[in-house]
Amino acid sequence: MKRTERIGAIIKILSDSPSKPFGLSYFCDLFGAAKSSISEDLKSAREIVRSMELGLIETIPGARGGVIFIPHIYDDQCLALQQELCGLIKDPIRMLGGGFLYTSDIMFNASLTKKMALVFARRFRSSGAEYVATIETKGIPLALMTSWMLNIPAVVVRRETKISEGPTISINYFSGSTGRIQKMSMAKRAALPGSHALIIDDFMRAGGSIKGIAELLDEFDAHVVGTGVAIATTEPENKKISEYTPLVYLGDVDENSGKIEVFPNSQIF
Amino acid sequence: MKRTERIGAIIKILSDSPSKPFGLSYFCDLFGAAKSSISEDLKSAREIVRSMELGLIETIPGARGGVIFIPHIYDDQCLALQQELCGLIKDPIRMLGGGFLYTSDIMFNASLTKKMALVFARRFRSSGAEYVATIETKGIPLALMTSWMLNIPAVVVRRETKISEGPTISINYFSGSTGRIQKMSMAKRAALPGSHALIIDDFMRAGGSIKGIAELLDEFDAHVVGTGVAIATTEPENKKISEYTPLVYLGDVDENSGKIEVFPNSQIF
Repeated sequence: MKRTERIGAIIKILSDSPSKPFGLSYFCDLFGAAKSSISEDLKSAREIVRSMELGLIETIPGARGGVIFIPHIYDDQCLALQQELCGLIKDPIRMLGGGFLYTSDIMFNASLTKKMALVFARRFRSSGAEYVATIETKGIPLALMTSWMLNIPAVVVRRETKISEGPTISINYFSGSTGRIQKMSMAKRAALPGSHALIIDDFMRAGGSIKGIAELLDEFDAHVVGTGVAIATTEPENKKISEYTPLVYLGDVDENSGKIEVFPNSQIF
Repeated sequence: MKRTERIGAIIKILSDSPSKPFGLSYFCDLFGAAKSSISEDLKSAREIVRSMELGLIETIPGARGGVIFIPHIYDDQCLALQQELCGLIKDPIRMLGGGFLYTSDIMFNASLTKKMALVFARRFRSSGAEYVATIETKGIPLALMTSWMLNIPAVVVRRETKISEGPTISINYFSGSTGRIQKMSMAKRAALPGSHALIIDDFMRAGGSIKGIAELLDEFDAHVVGTGVAIATTEPENKKISEYTPLVYLGDVDENSGKIEVFPNSQIF
């Protein structure tokens, strides 16, 4: 196999498995090539993705040395994404009354949520998160894509206990958007893969449900090392949680004029 | 930019946007290269992904000619995936009683569901599906990944009507697994992007909820062109729907011996 072919294949294989370490020997075996050749190939691959702003390839030093693809979003790409989101959200056709907006088409768009997940992956890469937690339903794609980018598992908190979850632990919490006490539960055998959780969700108003997730995780002796949401409202100013990273802020939603105020979070990183 | 670098970048860009056509001019502009050079690069890129079994790059003929990455899973890769799934599912630790199995860790595993989605993308590529439909909750990752692979939208049917969905259309259906009449609903403004739907779900016993989705879609003047499920049970033999493609079949679940019978569907394609 020629050098060009090896490099193309290396880029594809690495970027198909974000944040997953590969030993040099994996590629030596795959291509039947010497370590020195593969090292040269990896150097080129790294330079290609860096110069084209397609991500980062990093080397892992040491005897068991290897290589890892870090899915990166650059500042200008992040701002473009935030502006794309704002453009989608401010469409008055989304208005549902009561200040609610229809966003399911955005939150179930795979390629858009994958791009959004890149932002959270960059923001929380060094948080020590061992898994991503979310609550059903609309945050699932974003949480899933984030977990994929960080190569950690995703855990989904349920609103109803289902027979297929087995024994669960539940809490009650006050949901600001419905104005009611609601329940959330998690399977005991979700067997959280560590004690450090990253919470990802689609939308946050007062933060009640995200605080609920944190309380539920606490029952599993887990604690939250970061919170990312696609959309956070500017009001109420005092949220029930103090640390969170929204992609965009949603301000006033004026049903009379059809004007929706939405703007990028300029302090993500 | 050198040829090797262009080819590496082309492979990354194309495979990041599965099933999305790119004009030749996109790459000409990106690299500041002539059409003849890009054509040669694409030929090499196609040969690399083909020979390494990483997918298919196809050219779109005609004046507005271009290129598209088709995420392909080869027969041996598909069988390996099915066997991996069987291995995971037959672990007796999953048993919940009543024949139920805990599968959330499988269904919320991003990289596994992406591989599973490749199978459905291959199977239903020519079905004419204009979007993927699923019902919350555990089928969402699989449906999302399938929609991404086919570059079509995903629509999620809800079990509860939520205020953030706006006006909905609902149906009642008989759920075999709970033995009760249940409700499912879809936002009127989901505004289905066409009349041909592909249903994807995580699990199917008698097929009640999938038949329900089909009935609900019918209320939107949409009809089903294919159904893919991760796991289908062998019993009952007579399902409520006739056409479906499972990745694996689940047979007898024996709580006494801890034996779970599960085997690959050998007739997917």
